Amino acid sequence: MNAVSYDSVRPIAWREDALWLIDQRLLPARREEIVCRDVTEVAAAIRDMAVRGAPAIGITAAYGAVIAARQRYRENPARWRDEVEADLELLAGTRPTAVNLFWAIDRMRRAIRACEGDPCEALLAEARRIHEEDILANRRMGELGAALIEDPCAVLTHCNAGALATGGYGTALGVIRAGWAGGKIRQVYADETRPWLQGARLTAWELLEDGIPVTLVAEGAGAWLMKQGGVRWLIVGSDRIAANGDVANKIGTYAAALSARHHGVRVMVVAPTSTVDLATPSGDAIPIETRSAAELLGLGGVTVAADGAEAWNPVFDVTPAALVDAIVTEKGVVLKPDAAKLARLMAS
Amino acid sequence: MNAVSYDSVRPIAWREDALWLIDQRLLPARREEIVCRDVTEVAAAIRDMAVRGAPAIGITAAYGAVIAARQRYRENPARWRDEVEADLELLAGTRPTAVNLFWAIDRMRRAIRACEGDPCEALLAEARRIHEEDILANRRMGELGAALIEDPCAVLTHCNAGALATGGYGTALGVIRAGWAGGKIRQVYADETRPWLQGARLTAWELLEDGIPVTLVAEGAGAWLMKQGGVRWLIVGSDRIAANGDVANKIGTYAAALSARHHGVRVMVVAPTSTVDLATPSGDAIPIETRSAAELLGLGGVTVAADGAEAWNPVFDVTPAALVDAIVTEKGVVLKPDAAKLARLMAS
Repeated sequence: MNAVSYDSVRPIAWREDALWLIDQRLLPARREEIVCRDVTEVAAAIRDMAVRGAPAIGITAAYGAVIAARQRYRENPARWRDEVEADLELLAGTRPTAVNLFWAIDRMRRAIRACEGDPCEALLAEARRIHEEDILANRRMGELGAALIEDPCAVLTHCNAGALATGGYGTALGVIRAGWAGGKIRQVYADETRPWLQGARLTAWELLEDGIPVTLVAEGAGAWLMKQGGVRWLIVGSDRIAANGDVANKIGTYAAALSARHHGVRVMVVAPTSTVDLATPSGDAIPIETRSAAELLGLGGVTVAADGAEAWNPVFDVTPAALVDAIVTEKGVVLKPDAAKLARLMAS
Repeated sequence: MNAVSYDSVRPIAWREDALWLIDQRLLPARREEIVCRDVTEVAAAIRDMAVRGAPAIGITAAYGAVIAARQRYRENPARWRDEVEADLELLAGTRPTAVNLFWAIDRMRRAIRACEGDPCEALLAEARRIHEEDILANRRMGELGAALIEDPCAVLTHCNAGALATGGYGTALGVIRAGWAGGKIRQVYADETRPWLQGARLTAWELLEDGIPVTLVAEGAGAWLMKQGGVRWLIVGSDRIAANGDVANKIGTYAAALSARHHGVRVMVVAPTSTVDLATPSGDAIPIETRSAAELLGLGGVTVAADGAEAWNPVFDVTPAALVDAIVTEKGVVLKPDAAKLARLMAS
């Protein structure tokens, strides 16, 4: 039997003492990497969405902390720990919604405190651990999520919660990769996901890189697709899961989840426990990033909307826990999530 | 007091013995007209979406019948009535969902049967009547629909059911024009409406032409917008209303209506009685046009999706009558539509 890994895309790499990121703004037309050797370059890559996806920006920030510490230590070996704090703040200020960013920075902060002498090797090892743990978590979630799918069916995903959004393999797309490999998933639908078209550009690209066919639908067609039958699961990632199980994810997830509930399609949220934020009691307390109107008024640098139109561009929304059938983490699956179940999971 | 008409856009005009259409594929970047002097040009304009919107394609086909009859009569004054039938079939075959197309062709067919001698003048008069009646119907629907709005509020519309989709003034946008003029509507949200971006390109353009501000949202943001409060009505047009009140309209309407019901936002469908098809018992029997995958895989001639991706591109969906709060026609308003109420309206 010919083993197929379905795991060929790695968006983040450390080599030649620098951080290399696939520039996701250029996909699928061009596959180019940008190289970051300075923490301001790392912050810009996150803020300007060269790299995006909650786990991926956490990993990127972890490597950013390595770059910052190296620079600060060279400049001032006695006081670098104090000075690097400004760099960590710079990284933390890039995007507000994904909690994995703050989680990764906190973890690097603890590693920084533990350093003695030249911190480079120890911090790089910690960033690499964060990266590798993420891929392992995705592999585990892939198995757990695919096991929830009873009969071979079609699934719908929104945005890109794939290899490109993580260290590799993906969260929602990890489940889809595992489900495809195991014969549980017969057809993958992806909606386009405006305004950045992560579905059309990134999800389609990385699944096709792995030889998994994908059928795109307009975002507004998701409900009509569910009405036709065949789709049994809506499978998405998350940028932050509140203590009560409310799920922040790419704008449009909430609408898709409402349609799913109406049609008896189940909703699976796939995210590592670094996405779970017990300090945020509910979705109401999750900060929702609003980005530039220009992202909606144009596409690929070309203005599409009428001149003078305004735009409201929240880039995340919150799906209430009541609409979520399963949260899949590397520690296990929480069905019909609530505060008690999530607290138990996180304490396990 | 300075009277503002909010009615400055006319997409269809007959002048210099020819049919002039604003090429809606070029808006808002360029406002250009195409001129049709042959029935095949008229059919191509409908099929290729230079003109779109259910009432507008009906009116266009009516003028197309004038052009066809003129040509056939010149070629063969004795047998032109038989020969023009092939042209009417050509026009009827351009797009399957909007019933206004078939309604207008049937009306021209009756006028053709009544002709004696040179049919040009009589048929042009009939096409002009169809066009003028449509604008008057829109004016009336604007008043009736705006009267349903109790307190000043924000509204959301989907696709373009405006002047550009009709003879002028618009159906859903007629209500929005009237509601704006009368102070019933404080803010207009329009979603982008993939794949053709009629919301971003056309609705925004024609409202701004009339000085009505408009705020665009990604299609997936509609549910999240409703969650914030403020939006009280979803106002849309229709391409065909079945006898039981099921409403075919641009893909995404069904998803928006599901979100509206969940949030207590009311759904108003605005369409002339030429859109009501008592011969179609329910939405299940409405033919839904599926267009080329290329419309989804690219945008403005530029490929956006990953190479090798497939796409499913149904361009209409059906919103069941149970999700519709009001159907507004020029003959009156039907609240909570059903077969009996619609039959009564059509018989009135």
